[in-house]
Amino acid sequence: MNKSMVRFLLSKLLLIEAALLIVPLIVALIYQEDRTIMFSLLGTMAILILLGSLGIVFKPKNQHIYTKEGLLIVALCWVLWSFFGALPFVFTGQIPNIIDAFFEVSSGFTTTGATILPDVSVLSHSLLFWRSFTHLIGGMGVLVFALAIMENSKNSHLEVMRAEVPGPVFGKVVSKLKDTAQILYIIYLAMFAIFTVVLWFAGMPLYDSLVTAMGTAGTGGFTVFNDSIAHYHSSLITNLVSIGMLAFGVNFNLYYLLLMRKFKSFFGDEELRTYIGIVLAATILIWLNVSGLFSSAKEGLETSFFEVSTIMTTTGFGLTDLTVWPLFSQFILLLLMFIGGSAGSTAGGLKVMRTLIISKITKNQVLSSLYPNRIMSLHINHQPLDKRIQHSVLKYLAIYLAIFIGLVFILTLDSNKFMVVVSAAASAFNNIGPMLGTDKTFAIFSPFSKLALSFAMIAGRLEIYPMLLLFIPKTWSKT
Amino acid sequence: MNKSMVRFLLSKLLLIEAALLIVPLIVALIYQEDRTIMFSLLGTMAILILLGSLGIVFKPKNQHIYTKEGLLIVALCWVLWSFFGALPFVFTGQIPNIIDAFFEVSSGFTTTGATILPDVSVLSHSLLFWRSFTHLIGGMGVLVFALAIMENSKNSHLEVMRAEVPGPVFGKVVSKLKDTAQILYIIYLAMFAIFTVVLWFAGMPLYDSLVTAMGTAGTGGFTVFNDSIAHYHSSLITNLVSIGMLAFGVNFNLYYLLLMRKFKSFFGDEELRTYIGIVLAATILIWLNVSGLFSSAKEGLETSFFEVSTIMTTTGFGLTDLTVWPLFSQFILLLLMFIGGSAGSTAGGLKVMRTLIISKITKNQVLSSLYPNRIMSLHINHQPLDKRIQHSVLKYLAIYLAIFIGLVFILTLDSNKFMVVVSAAASAFNNIGPMLGTDKTFAIFSPFSKLALSFAMIAGRLEIYPMLLLFIPKTWSKT
Repeated sequence: MNKSMVRFLLSKLLLIEAALLIVPLIVALIYQEDRTIMFSLLGTMAILILLGSLGIVFKPKNQHIYTKEGLLIVALCWVLWSFFGALPFVFTGQIPNIIDAFFEVSSGFTTTGATILPDVSVLSHSLLFWRSFTHLIGGMGVLVFALAIMENSKNSHLEVMRAEVPGPVFGKVVSKLKDTAQILYIIYLAMFAIFTVVLWFAGMPLYDSLVTAMGTAGTGGFTVFNDSIAHYHSSLITNLVSIGMLAFGVNFNLYYLLLMRKFKSFFGDEELRTYIGIVLAATILIWLNVSGLFSSAKEGLETSFFEVSTIMTTTGFGLTDLTVWPLFSQFILLLLMFIGGSAGSTAGGLKVMRTLIISKITKNQVLSSLYPNRIMSLHINHQPLDKRIQHSVLKYLAIYLAIFIGLVFILTLDSNKFMVVVSAAASAFNNIGPMLGTDKTFAIFSPFSKLALSFAMIAGRLEIYPMLLLFIPKTWSKT
Repeated sequence: MNKSMVRFLLSKLLLIEAALLIVPLIVALIYQEDRTIMFSLLGTMAILILLGSLGIVFKPKNQHIYTKEGLLIVALCWVLWSFFGALPFVFTGQIPNIIDAFFEVSSGFTTTGATILPDVSVLSHSLLFWRSFTHLIGGMGVLVFALAIMENSKNSHLEVMRAEVPGPVFGKVVSKLKDTAQILYIIYLAMFAIFTVVLWFAGMPLYDSLVTAMGTAGTGGFTVFNDSIAHYHSSLITNLVSIGMLAFGVNFNLYYLLLMRKFKSFFGDEELRTYIGIVLAATILIWLNVSGLFSSAKEGLETSFFEVSTIMTTTGFGLTDLTVWPLFSQFILLLLMFIGGSAGSTAGGLKVMRTLIISKITKNQVLSSLYPNRIMSLHINHQPLDKRIQHSVLKYLAIYLAIFIGLVFILTLDSNKFMVVVSAAASAFNNIGPMLGTDKTFAIFSPFSKLALSFAMIAGRLEIYPMLLLFIPKTWSKT
């Protein structure tokens, strides 16, 4: 373990967070917010700069880092950024409790969008903007971002990237990894900018457009108002947001193919087809099931489409009161929480790709039991899928379920409603945001549960392994 | 597909069911029940004898059957026995609806013990006895029983046995399979007889002892009264039943080892140790969690121990109102529903062995991610476990979850309580009996859901594959 290098890179990352805090500072200046807020932001930046500078004084001689260091840096970066990013909320008193603030900011960076705030109007413009800005940063992975602008470590890029970009199959778009990160990041920011303008033209105030677009781009879910997207009472905005969310739930490598005019590869992609198929099927089933709750078929369809998109892409914007929905529809949403968006998108969850692989394995297993003599093969995009990948997906499922069950256990101590507890765990671990079966926020949980949920959010975002590293003694031993 | 042989053997099995109906007929005679009941039983027997005799008139020339025929016979036998076994309930009018009666009897043969009867006092002594007698028959598998007394088919024993005796690892106790079945069956009946006498001595009436012992031996759960074991208000009976249930949740091969005085192999068995460990851990956790609900620590401990035993062994006897228990305890019980008893016992569920294998795979996967250079191996009882078995267990888990989720979907159409729906699906599929989160019976579900639950019970009992055969066109095609 090259600890000096871990220390050195984490210090750099703290300095980057200090730089990022300039954004809410500008917002505070524009809205002429009071001094406490300014000083809270500046104070946090000062702490970050002090710690960061101390950490980079001694440049390590050995700059080589490997998988383990890479994973550890990713995990610690997420924890540290969430912790220091929470300080302005504590200093201003807008979220006085550090655990609550840590929950809120880790919810932001992990693009979950779960909140402990019953009323978001307690947040000033600057801190509400900062909260949503963490979605934008977290969206494509803090480290992809960091690597694209940083030039320090050697031969470690691939490993860090692997921990950061979600999904089991990581297709390299271009040969050099740094270029890949930059291309993906440019696509991401361009789509974000376009979507901001679209929302603005559709009638949203600019501030709201920026905040909503950041929530959409990162598939996060934080918004400006307690009633989220319902606040705008606009069918146009609702539909635009539905489509926007779905766009950010697509594998970004596919957009590169689109730019390269490889339309056949784009539209033929099996994960994309499955993703669209699931969205359509779920929308229709829910639409039929909830039709009685809406005055018109159009409203029912739009609402069903929105809710399917917001849950499936793990964004978590709100539109309607789901507690009155029949259990059938709620259960569909709960399942979508586990599936999540596409691999290589900003979405969380198991990912469509893993779900696809698991269902193909299941189907093959059933068929091979029934027709023992038939030779089974498993193809994704007309390519045979390596047995090793198949098994690693099944094993990922096992670990995933084990952590999920453990999290549910912790939450059962705080609530007696099974749907609330299950959906809260699913919502946090899959980086979605809202719970089912209640109109309350995550404030109903104990501080211990909130910490567990925060770690689950980060674990879910980083696809589990990097966070596990933090909990084994060997990581911290001296030898 | 040797269809003649399937027809021939199923016909034999119908004749066997006719013979089994002599038992409730004797009970009806003892209790001098009215003629309708006698005629209903005799009428059912007449139908079975007629159909069975017609089916064995032409003895097939080719008597060889293979895996597929074996699995198909098992699946159809369970369905047919449940259907014809339900007729006396319909004929007497005690359960007038055939779907309800089919549910009740398949619940019996699969040793589930789930009921659609809000009040069991509508059943006469004879039919209540028959209902519980199906537990005893179903306990060790209809076909193990049938094979032990039947000498028709050739080279098919092993395959049928594999479908019948639950669990992923089937250790042959003695070299010849027919002898194995007979030895296991003798142990089973001896334990049943001893337990009946024990309950009788403990103060139960003889009829109740027989019914309760049949429910215990088959890990079924049907009893004489609506309030199940609570009816006896006896701490002694409660504890005896707890221990009795646990005894029938142990792999019966281990009892053979005990008879052979191989104590070291018995007590060293990893599945047994895990089984006992889970029971103890769950009992203590629940005891601590529910202590406030009981007047004394002893009562709390006894009730916790009973509930853990009844759920873990998939028996499903009742003792206390679980709806008032905290969600933490209910969730433990829900997890125990999925784990179930030991492989090679009369219990249902995933089985302790599979749970053990899955958790070892998960642990290894975590460790190999964290320490990439370490060589991982997976041992059960100090023997390395074949990779093929590991993967088949993971694949079984995937199919199992897929069916479970499908079943929950169907049930969400009938109830809006998530815990009720999830626990009803888990309870039926794992052959347990009671639901959590409600004091109602399965009567709350629609006829379609009841049929789905009946098939789930049989699928769960037969470890899925045989039942899948019934749903593919090729099984029924002419070629």
